[in-house]
Amino acid sequence: MPTPSTDAARGGLFVAFEGGDGAGKSTQVRLLVEALARRGVDDVLVTRQPGGTPLGQALRDLVLHGDHVAPRAEALLYAADKAQHVELVLRPALAAGRVVVTDRYVDSSVAYQGAGRDLGVEDVTRLQHWAVGGLLPDLTVLLDVTAATGRERRGARGAADRLEAEGDDFHDAVRRHFLLLAQADPQRYVVVDAALPPEEAHALVLARVGQALDRLGVQA
Amino acid sequence: MPTPSTDAARGGLFVAFEGGDGAGKSTQVRLLVEALARRGVDDVLVTRQPGGTPLGQALRDLVLHGDHVAPRAEALLYAADKAQHVELVLRPALAAGRVVVTDRYVDSSVAYQGAGRDLGVEDVTRLQHWAVGGLLPDLTVLLDVTAATGRERRGARGAADRLEAEGDDFHDAVRRHFLLLAQADPQRYVVVDAALPPEEAHALVLARVGQALDRLGVQA
Repeated sequence: MPTPSTDAARGGLFVAFEGGDGAGKSTQVRLLVEALARRGVDDVLVTRQPGGTPLGQALRDLVLHGDHVAPRAEALLYAADKAQHVELVLRPALAAGRVVVTDRYVDSSVAYQGAGRDLGVEDVTRLQHWAVGGLLPDLTVLLDVTAATGRERRGARGAADRLEAEGDDFHDAVRRHFLLLAQADPQRYVVVDAALPPEEAHALVLARVGQALDRLGVQA
Repeated sequence: MPTPSTDAARGGLFVAFEGGDGAGKSTQVRLLVEALARRGVDDVLVTRQPGGTPLGQALRDLVLHGDHVAPRAEALLYAADKAQHVELVLRPALAAGRVVVTDRYVDSSVAYQGAGRDLGVEDVTRLQHWAVGGLLPDLTVLLDVTAATGRERRGARGAADRLEAEGDDFHDAVRRHFLLLAQADPQRYVVVDAALPPEEAHALVLARVGQALDRLGVQA
């Protein structure tokens, strides 16, 4: 299917956090939102995928905690979650000029279902781009974590879901895919070493988000 | 995404019933199964889409009876239902040489989400073919019903779901799409006027299914 282009004229600022499980995405999202609030940007929409809508939450539960899901069905459910999230949540917020920060987006789906599951990166990319109608982030923060570090951190926080429970080979393939995407588009990606102390990683994130806010003229 | 070819070597016989709401698909499926049993073909798998697996049933409920679902999300959920159904139900049955009869398949999804919902027939067709991994029916029975007749019959059986409640324009677009598909591939489609008395329609269906059984050498 055709890959639609990004709609540049939409307003707002769209930031996605991507990275393996245990990369510290939740912490970095929180630190960013707190820093933006201190700078006067306090109308930030924080969301996540999968599960950013009631439908998405139902789908997330089906995929992560239900019976066996065929690989293609899994990829399609993540795409459906995204389509719903974009139409009901992301586009309205951006149209209102808001800053939107999402924990995972298209890249995670392609990395986990395309690279990790052998469904084909190209097919899953087209599927995801069709689902979101071409809406891509202005800035993607890739928190880069090795499979071993991710595993240790996941261990520390308790029970794994179905994807987290995959082996190191799976998580290595996912990581390689994230890094390839970032290398291909350095303007739109910032890669941050997830092994850094959280405040150091946060400073790198905040600098790039500040640049993006200035560039897009978002009220700060 | 690429359109995989049909896997001809798989064995069994795969028959799909398609057509608008109120076309009489359930009745015709039942009459066919009874007739096949009288001819000694009693190991027939009868199924339906959406909802032919536990996951599919959950998705069917979300789409038809839940909150507002974005059009692309709806198309992706129907595709996910199909991917699950093909991998867990249809392929194993056909691999075992069984006759499989399904109430709705790919064509319904393309007609309702592509033609009816303006998502684009080409995109939804690719999506559906990817979901089923190229598994297409040996024979598709199209029960052709006008929007007006379908509406009358739906009225007679009570409350409508979300798709059934659409207007005549929607159902006309769906019907045109079904007819186009059948005209493009007369070898694989049989079009039966749904206004015929059920036993007359059934005789037409049975004749074509019998030919297909003979052609494929399925034990009868």
